[in-house]
Amino acid sequence: EILDAVSNCFDTGTLAGLRVHITAGPTQEPLDPVRYISNHSSGKMGYALAQAATDAGAAVTLISGPVNLAQPDHVKRISVTTAQEMLSASLANIDDCDIFIACAAVADYRPTAIAEHKIKKGNEEIMELHLVKNPDIVATVASLENKPFTVGFAAETRDVINYARGKLAKKGLDMIVANDVSQAGIGFNSDENAVTLVTANQQTSIPQTSKRQLAVQLIEQIAKHYKTSK
Amino acid sequence: EILDAVSNCFDTGTLAGLRVHITAGPTQEPLDPVRYISNHSSGKMGYALAQAATDAGAAVTLISGPVNLAQPDHVKRISVTTAQEMLSASLANIDDCDIFIACAAVADYRPTAIAEHKIKKGNEEIMELHLVKNPDIVATVASLENKPFTVGFAAETRDVINYARGKLAKKGLDMIVANDVSQAGIGFNSDENAVTLVTANQQTSIPQTSKRQLAVQLIEQIAKHYKTSK
Repeated sequence: EILDAVSNCFDTGTLAGLRVHITAGPTQEPLDPVRYISNHSSGKMGYALAQAATDAGAAVTLISGPVNLAQPDHVKRISVTTAQEMLSASLANIDDCDIFIACAAVADYRPTAIAEHKIKKGNEEIMELHLVKNPDIVATVASLENKPFTVGFAAETRDVINYARGKLAKKGLDMIVANDVSQAGIGFNSDENAVTLVTANQQTSIPQTSKRQLAVQLIEQIAKHYKTSK
Repeated sequence: EILDAVSNCFDTGTLAGLRVHITAGPTQEPLDPVRYISNHSSGKMGYALAQAATDAGAAVTLISGPVNLAQPDHVKRISVTTAQEMLSASLANIDDCDIFIACAAVADYRPTAIAEHKIKKGNEEIMELHLVKNPDIVATVASLENKPFTVGFAAETRDVINYARGKLAKKGLDMIVANDVSQAGIGFNSDENAVTLVTANQQTSIPQTSKRQLAVQLIEQIAKHYKTSK
């Protein structure tokens, strides 16, 4: 494909010698052996970033929640289910990480307790579910003493840029990729996306395109900002 | 394949002229535009049943929750997300239905209210989620005056046959297919399954086999019991 040729010509080496860790997909938080809470996320954006970073010469580790996607070539994939597992996998090799891209749609809350057996449907018309906040993976990584260049994602349905700027500051990120998931045809489970890239000083919009092309552009931008930060 | 040949030789016509409706896959119950509660279910068993019933000569309607499976040939598929949508689709053409097979893993409860915008993660360490019971689709169908021959599924993690017998009686089903989802390698998201078929008077075990072969055997048994019931 033309895109392959283009990416091979122009992108090779912008991340050569760098180690990039990417989280992707949703997490599933079990209630019991059959039920869970999750988020809409196909994992396509994270997998496309893994491919684009590899094409740009990086050694890529992909920490992936449950998705229906093939493992990209030359990428080390670590499969996880819950947010706690994703955090453990993210911290396990963090000293070896130059750039951390948190693309996964991590569940904010998990059930307080996981029932060992399937919860029987009782006669109660109403049920209360007790949830506890999950660890904030990207904020945890960004708070490390020798933190990697840390990129977060903000999927919002309104007031997208303001929420993204707030997250950037509050979590101590180097960059945040904001997208408006209320727009049909982009984002979750779609093959296309449109985002705004936010840093402390800059704001760059990337108009709607395929997740694959967007990933190539994002990796270019991340490489540029990473080098400026050194 | 041999199985194709066998099923073409022996199964053709056992359901000829009959209309079979099958529910398959999980339901997703949204909390907000990005979060949902769901069940582990690949939809493979229901889709295999739809194929086997078609091969046996039935006109098949497949009412399917969100799955990653191709639409079987010669099957009418109706795609739904929530339990309420699945109930509506199940009742819409129920007068045209001879045999109703409820294979879907329907969420027992749904959030009381769906937030229009993404719920912001606050500072609260704990969250209470208010759920309300979903309609029981197979029990609703079985309670109709001119009910079809109604087959339910019981996925349990313990005391499987007792729970299945209880459901058969309580919901007024003609047959229930019970499986022990606590066993590794069968059931949810697996390609194989092992079940026990329970009617008011009989109990038949079908040992572990591929979901496709199991579906052929189940459709044979369902056709036999359907004819006995007339």
